[in-house]
Amino acid sequence: MQTELSKKLGVEHAIFGFTPFPAVAAAISRAGGFGVLGAVRYTASDDLKRDLDWIEAHVEGRPYGLDVVMPAKKAEAPNHRPLTEADVEAMIPEAHRQFVKDTLAKYGVPELDEGEASGWRITGWMEQVARSQLDVAFDYPIRLLANALGSPPADVIARAHEHDVLVAALAGSARHALKHKEAGIDIVVAQGYEAGGHTGEIASMVLTPEVVDAVDPLPVLAAGGIGSGQQAAAALALGAQGVWLGSIWLTVTEADLSSPAVTRKLLAAGSGDTVRSRALSGKPARQLRTEWTDAWDDPAGPGALPMPLQGLLVADALTRIQKYEIEPLLGTPVGQIVGRMNSERSVQAVFDDLTRGFEEAVDRMIRIAGRSGT
Amino acid sequence: MQTELSKKLGVEHAIFGFTPFPAVAAAISRAGGFGVLGAVRYTASDDLKRDLDWIEAHVEGRPYGLDVVMPAKKAEAPNHRPLTEADVEAMIPEAHRQFVKDTLAKYGVPELDEGEASGWRITGWMEQVARSQLDVAFDYPIRLLANALGSPPADVIARAHEHDVLVAALAGSARHALKHKEAGIDIVVAQGYEAGGHTGEIASMVLTPEVVDAVDPLPVLAAGGIGSGQQAAAALALGAQGVWLGSIWLTVTEADLSSPAVTRKLLAAGSGDTVRSRALSGKPARQLRTEWTDAWDDPAGPGALPMPLQGLLVADALTRIQKYEIEPLLGTPVGQIVGRMNSERSVQAVFDDLTRGFEEAVDRMIRIAGRSGT
Repeated sequence: MQTELSKKLGVEHAIFGFTPFPAVAAAISRAGGFGVLGAVRYTASDDLKRDLDWIEAHVEGRPYGLDVVMPAKKAEAPNHRPLTEADVEAMIPEAHRQFVKDTLAKYGVPELDEGEASGWRITGWMEQVARSQLDVAFDYPIRLLANALGSPPADVIARAHEHDVLVAALAGSARHALKHKEAGIDIVVAQGYEAGGHTGEIASMVLTPEVVDAVDPLPVLAAGGIGSGQQAAAALALGAQGVWLGSIWLTVTEADLSSPAVTRKLLAAGSGDTVRSRALSGKPARQLRTEWTDAWDDPAGPGALPMPLQGLLVADALTRIQKYEIEPLLGTPVGQIVGRMNSERSVQAVFDDLTRGFEEAVDRMIRIAGRSGT
Repeated sequence: MQTELSKKLGVEHAIFGFTPFPAVAAAISRAGGFGVLGAVRYTASDDLKRDLDWIEAHVEGRPYGLDVVMPAKKAEAPNHRPLTEADVEAMIPEAHRQFVKDTLAKYGVPELDEGEASGWRITGWMEQVARSQLDVAFDYPIRLLANALGSPPADVIARAHEHDVLVAALAGSARHALKHKEAGIDIVVAQGYEAGGHTGEIASMVLTPEVVDAVDPLPVLAAGGIGSGQQAAAALALGAQGVWLGSIWLTVTEADLSSPAVTRKLLAAGSGDTVRSRALSGKPARQLRTEWTDAWDDPAGPGALPMPLQGLLVADALTRIQKYEIEPLLGTPVGQIVGRMNSERSVQAVFDDLTRGFEEAVDRMIRIAGRSGT
């Protein structure tokens, strides 16, 4: 599965795998794809350093990348200093705090231990944190820097290019993709409605070719709805230069999910068991539908706050739900392909399935088109 | 573009075109595809007879089909007689009637003339009407009977099979597709989230292979998000035996839309300008987003009534909006591919674009897979 972009990056298959787990990222690159480590959870530089060291030791010299969350617009406090977590805390209405308390109480969710804080707070979403992540990352031979929310700031793009690092940004519409192009990025990840995490409303079948046309000649990676080789083939037929898969790696044996109960839920879920909800971050993000997302999406409730307030509001609550495995409330971002995530397999097994399915799809296309060659 | 199913039906390309316009249906079949005439608007048998005669005279012996709307469950009045339009009228709350009146008044929409009724009432959705359509249709050499809502009743399937007519049914989930298979239909149309008209929430990229696996060995047609040859190639890579296109034909020169203003709106709309709304029929259907759909989707309003009440409630209103071309309220069912419907072209030109794009996509797949043949 070779495109101009995969050749440029020196990978065997144009399969990009986004994952928060170093072991999964390294295994994707070793299998012949391109592993991309999600950095949002690294609020301490030393943790990121440790995990990039680990990848370096296990990636067998294959290329890999990093995904950060860096908003194009700086969040600022009224006096123009950078917004702190305390500023955001102060903006959260009391009624919303009470709704969190009441909902947790309804399900009997125990408190965290004294001094135990959420590992997943707002900080990872803030520019100063992403910048300190980059200070670490550019010491490593990363080949790609992806940004999940908007185009990265101009100086970050310039710095990446000085380090011979390609810059990718996610887009849910052709308009956003064009903005990325104008900002000087190198690759657009077209994130369809069916994808896990933050998504727009345009499905991959429509979005991919639209973005390809809009940003030509920039290469486009298709994200959303891709978990099989047939789906990868479809995305490439739509003009993508590669596929960007996130959800499918959540249930691989190398993954280290917060709770075995989440893995069980993912393995059991069908394609109709996700919802695009603002419950997680304040922006619409696809995730398992749970009684927690239902509570936030209920018109009778207070509704989710805008980003970044919602993320901070629910950080401790989500940690408690995960720690105590409160099944009806327990969820995770995941795309509609969760319906085909029905067994725990190794990254290599998923990869073999992807490449075999792709070849089968090509055989099928050749047959349907009545071409002679194989 | 040849599959087992296209060969069985004797068409050159596995492209199925759904359209309410006889001229478009005939042109699709003449171009080498399979035209399917939507019958829901034919409330009088003679009108359907006239249009099928017209198709017979213009289809040059090519195969074509008919699409009816026949609910699997009979709608019944409390005393078990078939539900009439008057029964449904009586079930509509006064507050909803008032909301229609107020909304139309707000935009200064004139009344219909004395005795002028909506051409698009509920009747086309009712089983007795669909059955009278079938009494007409089986006198013609139709090769396919499609049903838009659920599986057709068993006796209708049997009657179709006696006439050597294949039966297709639309499904928005693998579960619905399996029900169709159990009911004895021959073809499943997997209708993705991005499609125009009634849709579920699963995007084509995920839905198509799920339905293919679920109903194997029945052939599946992919619907939703398909307006180019690249998109057709993607759908075939996903395992479909053909593609089912509806929206793309709305702006062909052979089409006869209710109003030139609708055509203008379709040509101007982007992929983000549709909404899945219950405003039209009471079930979620994708259509142009307008101030009319906004009014029905507004949580502050009364909200849409369930099918079939909503369709009857708004029938006259929609006729008035169309007749007087009230731009902010004027819409039509259409899928997300409306974003690529930017010029009026003939059916043949659309078809040439589809087949050329398909061949280009196959070339691309062969290159990416590193296959030698062409």
